[in-house]
Amino acid sequence: MRKRYLMTPGPTPVPSEVLLAQARPMIHHRTDEFSNILAQVIEDLKYVFQTKNDVAVFASSGTGAMESAVSNLFSAGDKVIVTSNGKFGDRFVQIAEAYGLEVKKLEYEWDTVVDPKDVGDELAKDAGIKGVFVTQSETSTGVLNDVKAVGEIVKNHQAILVVDSITGIGAVDLKTDEWGLDVVMTGSQKGLMLPPGLAAVSISDKAWEAASRSSLPKFYFSYKKAIDSINKAQPTTPFTPPVSLIVGLSEALKMMRDEGLEGMIERHSMLAEATRRGLESMGIKLFAPSNGRGSAVTPAWVPDGIDGKALVKKMKEEQGITIAGGQDRLSGKVFRIGHLGYFDRFDILTTLAGLEMTLVELGYDFEPGSGVRAAEETFLNK
Amino acid sequence: MRKRYLMTPGPTPVPSEVLLAQARPMIHHRTDEFSNILAQVIEDLKYVFQTKNDVAVFASSGTGAMESAVSNLFSAGDKVIVTSNGKFGDRFVQIAEAYGLEVKKLEYEWDTVVDPKDVGDELAKDAGIKGVFVTQSETSTGVLNDVKAVGEIVKNHQAILVVDSITGIGAVDLKTDEWGLDVVMTGSQKGLMLPPGLAAVSISDKAWEAASRSSLPKFYFSYKKAIDSINKAQPTTPFTPPVSLIVGLSEALKMMRDEGLEGMIERHSMLAEATRRGLESMGIKLFAPSNGRGSAVTPAWVPDGIDGKALVKKMKEEQGITIAGGQDRLSGKVFRIGHLGYFDRFDILTTLAGLEMTLVELGYDFEPGSGVRAAEETFLNK
Repeated sequence: MRKRYLMTPGPTPVPSEVLLAQARPMIHHRTDEFSNILAQVIEDLKYVFQTKNDVAVFASSGTGAMESAVSNLFSAGDKVIVTSNGKFGDRFVQIAEAYGLEVKKLEYEWDTVVDPKDVGDELAKDAGIKGVFVTQSETSTGVLNDVKAVGEIVKNHQAILVVDSITGIGAVDLKTDEWGLDVVMTGSQKGLMLPPGLAAVSISDKAWEAASRSSLPKFYFSYKKAIDSINKAQPTTPFTPPVSLIVGLSEALKMMRDEGLEGMIERHSMLAEATRRGLESMGIKLFAPSNGRGSAVTPAWVPDGIDGKALVKKMKEEQGITIAGGQDRLSGKVFRIGHLGYFDRFDILTTLAGLEMTLVELGYDFEPGSGVRAAEETFLNK
Repeated sequence: MRKRYLMTPGPTPVPSEVLLAQARPMIHHRTDEFSNILAQVIEDLKYVFQTKNDVAVFASSGTGAMESAVSNLFSAGDKVIVTSNGKFGDRFVQIAEAYGLEVKKLEYEWDTVVDPKDVGDELAKDAGIKGVFVTQSETSTGVLNDVKAVGEIVKNHQAILVVDSITGIGAVDLKTDEWGLDVVMTGSQKGLMLPPGLAAVSISDKAWEAASRSSLPKFYFSYKKAIDSINKAQPTTPFTPPVSLIVGLSEALKMMRDEGLEGMIERHSMLAEATRRGLESMGIKLFAPSNGRGSAVTPAWVPDGIDGKALVKKMKEEQGITIAGGQDRLSGKVFRIGHLGYFDRFDILTTLAGLEMTLVELGYDFEPGSGVRAAEETFLNK
């Protein structure tokens, strides 16, 4: 018997309470019973998004929600700025180009943050820019971009600010309204502690104005259809919703309400700090820069002389701990420890202990126990 | 304590085995473990679709899969025929128009079948037609359209035949390859006995050729991305898949394999016949015409003098049996008993008994017991 630990930045572990809520007998979606659940879910999502804006849910992965921002807000030929310092910034470029937008890509090294000033400079150069896309918390690199600062710059401009917080919400602070974020999206398999298959999007008044001018084709991901349905006397969805995921979400959101936003963000910050200190104590270099380290996932460089893919494989097969490898250009070069969602201190200590044993076996030269000790110290000092 | 019975044409009841499979601890999707499950699911779906064509899965409702056929196969301005004798035929019109296709709608009364000859006539009139859309089993009316006959006509033409079998597959026969159906779609919450949130689509070689010419924007629902990922050495999905639904689906497909396609189709046919005979014995008129009655759902006219909405409400609140009302123009005029997926004879007898008690209370003049007796006779004669 070996227990298994899922330490990836999505899918993340799902609490048993949520798994079992999803195993309740199926209910029909055009009933008061479902409408009441959906209405509460939308209200709780607004709490988590820190917004009074409309919030829509879709049966889709996070990428579907990213696509929805392109197809609902813009028209072919519209000029937009896409900032990218990782795989998911690049995905926004691909989606925007697939829909015929004219993309000005602000590209950064993957181990650096997006500079909000560059966004301001681009907007100043071209008053015709219709949108700005930013990834808050890059799953591929753990880099946290300062969307608050970007919001400050974009809010006095006609451009719509679209924020991918798929790996952010629930783990790091995201003040949708206070920071002026027009469209924000997340996916279920992250901070929301659900299986994948559901996405949520918030839509500001400014975004609605842009949506009214958009001529790109949309149907399944139409914001108007989604919000018109939610605003009915019996709140609903335009198409059959993922009932079991929404029932599970209502349970997960109850848990999030119980902990409170502040508590959640503090917990994630502590887990991230313990992970970072643990790794550094083992002589491992962190990937994300000191001015942009998020609390959702901690990527680190594979130590010299160690095979990165073998490290991830050995952790999974021999320790039962699934961590993530590097994506795209970082494949084999970094490993990533996810800690967003349903995690506590012992998940971090377990992972560091498993990593220590794995690295001993791979012949890495360090002081075994040093990582766990440093993490313990972090928890003791909190 | 009152047991609850979900007798709607989607969502349909989910077997406990499937519900509990979905409640297993979350696994990561970029692992051999998940790839093996996905590969088996795709193979089993091909069995159910009766096809050797490619089959893709999406995290979406059936409507997302309908949209995928439009965005992957066509270009703005393309001329297509959409046949419609119900709400979901109309939905194809709406989607095709949202994407700028030029739609020739072949419209039929909702209680009649699509005439394949009309499709042939339209194709003969205009060689430029690029696609034909047909709903096999109309959820809103129970009408079964003869897609085999349509396939016969379309196969010698350049047009791509798109078949919505969302409420068909698993309940009625659908020979994708033998009948020449180019793109066929279904949703999880129907014959596949899963919660909603997953859709599957099969794609023929002819459809791939059309896809290569399509210029409509697509990303999330891209067939190419989906199939390229499934064809990898480690089969996967381009974006995070709905892991728990796919794990549940692998369990449901095992059950379907155990029963066998023929057994499944026979069982549904028997359940539908018992339902129809039960209703008719109570003096209730069936909605669907005798030349187009499917085995997925049985709609019937609300008897004169009875309030249709009250009937559905009373069944749910007092008997614990959720049946469906009429949709759109049939609202309040018909009621629908779903029997596709996880149903056996006693679900039908239960529903007829509940309906009898409800109609007695609503003052309908008939012989109580006659519906149940007629259904029993059907089962006895099988």
